[in-house]
Amino acid sequence: MSTPHPLVSAEFAKPPFFVGVDLGGTSVKVGVVDDWGRPLARLSIPTQSENGPEDATARMGRAVTDAIAEAGLEPGAVARVGLGSPGTMDIPNGMLVAPVNLKGWDNYPIRDRLSHFCGLSVTFANDAAAAAYGEYWVGSGQAFHSMVLLTLGTGIGCGIIIGDLSIDGENSHGAECGHIIINDAEDARMCGCGRRGHLEAYASATAVVKRTQEGLDAGRASSLVKRVGRGDPLTPKVVAEEAAAGDAFSLQIVLDTAKYLGVGITTLLHTIDPNGVLLAGAMTFGGNDAELGRLFLARIKEEVQRRAFALLAERITIDFASLGADAGFIGAAGLARLAHQRAAGSL
Amino acid sequence: MSTPHPLVSAEFAKPPFFVGVDLGGTSVKVGVVDDWGRPLARLSIPTQSENGPEDATARMGRAVTDAIAEAGLEPGAVARVGLGSPGTMDIPNGMLVAPVNLKGWDNYPIRDRLSHFCGLSVTFANDAAAAAYGEYWVGSGQAFHSMVLLTLGTGIGCGIIIGDLSIDGENSHGAECGHIIINDAEDARMCGCGRRGHLEAYASATAVVKRTQEGLDAGRASSLVKRVGRGDPLTPKVVAEEAAAGDAFSLQIVLDTAKYLGVGITTLLHTIDPNGVLLAGAMTFGGNDAELGRLFLARIKEEVQRRAFALLAERITIDFASLGADAGFIGAAGLARLAHQRAAGSL
Repeated sequence: MSTPHPLVSAEFAKPPFFVGVDLGGTSVKVGVVDDWGRPLARLSIPTQSENGPEDATARMGRAVTDAIAEAGLEPGAVARVGLGSPGTMDIPNGMLVAPVNLKGWDNYPIRDRLSHFCGLSVTFANDAAAAAYGEYWVGSGQAFHSMVLLTLGTGIGCGIIIGDLSIDGENSHGAECGHIIINDAEDARMCGCGRRGHLEAYASATAVVKRTQEGLDAGRASSLVKRVGRGDPLTPKVVAEEAAAGDAFSLQIVLDTAKYLGVGITTLLHTIDPNGVLLAGAMTFGGNDAELGRLFLARIKEEVQRRAFALLAERITIDFASLGADAGFIGAAGLARLAHQRAAGSL
Repeated sequence: MSTPHPLVSAEFAKPPFFVGVDLGGTSVKVGVVDDWGRPLARLSIPTQSENGPEDATARMGRAVTDAIAEAGLEPGAVARVGLGSPGTMDIPNGMLVAPVNLKGWDNYPIRDRLSHFCGLSVTFANDAAAAAYGEYWVGSGQAFHSMVLLTLGTGIGCGIIIGDLSIDGENSHGAECGHIIINDAEDARMCGCGRRGHLEAYASATAVVKRTQEGLDAGRASSLVKRVGRGDPLTPKVVAEEAAAGDAFSLQIVLDTAKYLGVGITTLLHTIDPNGVLLAGAMTFGGNDAELGRLFLARIKEEVQRRAFALLAERITIDFASLGADAGFIGAAGLARLAHQRAAGSL
């Protein structure tokens, strides 16, 4: 679940080199990778989004330069930069449109401004698509020709990769799979986006907290009552701790989350028919390293077995992602590498 | 809703030429098209599936030769043949696996056998993908870079095209969008595939008949009672006739079908973000030529407005397909053309 590769030193790395930038609401991760996707250097700077996009992008440009120096490379050794950013965005035009987690950054030409500040060509991508490409290139998805990455956090991010093609969509809204519908009822749960029945309204961290609170409000017996009573905030982490400690209600919350994800994944299998579906993000319950994570994964697979064509349920690989917080910058660098190869005519 | 182009004669057609074969459970449509997708000749032969795949494929091979002669072309003028076939199938290996509507045709190497019988290279495709490619190439989807075609009949067929790429899936089960889940409830409607909550269980012709019968059984007032009483079978066509004649219950059935489709289409917008979604098949209620078809389409759009991101609901084109029964062979020929161009290195 953590860093896939230790850093490699420049003398053993395979050129050309690429820099990946993973822009988040709180911090920006920047890393240099070689042609095989191995990181040579990584660093992180605060986003300080309140100071506006131009300030942050200027610092991102310096961070790119710093990371290249830290990797022990000459600036000329880097072929291209990849930038993964949260939406909404206009990918072909390199614009942030109205990013929810970057207030006041609307209609900012971030791709070309970053290029200006770092002096390198920049490939622009959705952050979830970049993470998916990272896993596809050098993570848990290495063996796949096509895959879906679901990033489970406050919301549900998604990237879909089919044979080196990222499904970005015609309006830069491809792979918004947190918003596929799993329940068409008029009283289905309300999503953060203001519409009902979306997967995210059932299986995001926000939804887990809401479903848990509803259960407690309805008087369900649970060790969570004690936790909340002593002032712990109700979070997926606390629910996971109590589930792991044997609380039946907390475990039910985790397994119901898995069930909803299994429904959504079935829809993706019947649309894309990929080789694999990978799960990443804060809400993966410890992944393969934890009993709870393994139960969570098993329940997802069970639901897919019930819902999907037998052939697909049998052949699909559903697993946890492996690159952790590095996926975003590695994938952004990988997408920059693809653009470089296309420009060079070698792809 | 019918044939897009009159036949063009060979002297005015643009080479190279391609033959498309659209294999169905009852009949096989074969057509010759030019490099611009215009048909020069079309013919139809009975499938006679009960005589087995080798007999039918031999006759399909002769039909290819006959169509080329009917078009006034030399056999050498045709660059390649495209074959669209119902699933299940193994596209890379050119095999029918277990086609539901072609009993006894299991594990038949149809691509290579057709190639043997007609003496031309054959590109193999799913029939719904071929129809989608036909609409994309020369039909209602001509203006799109990416699109989804939903074919509404006994079941719901689907093809997804993104920039000349047909989403065939890793197991030849891509774009099985009749089986995306719209209702995750344990008591959701049972699909013909044996699993619950799939779109096809709500919005196929089979589902329309079932929902109508349930309403009548529950005592809903409807002019359908009289129709059924005088021996008319309950079909979507009869429901459409009564809806068009002013029967409120029949109209409700049609509009509920549209609502379910709107839910499914929303999921596709949030997954693929295409330029357009086109509707084809027997159950399109007259399409743009009929008041009922226009009401049906308007209700689909209304549901997408309610369910999808505002930007996507605003930008998506949802409309009826235009090639009618020609879509399958034209699209199969178009996919053959793509394969020909790729082989020639011009794509």
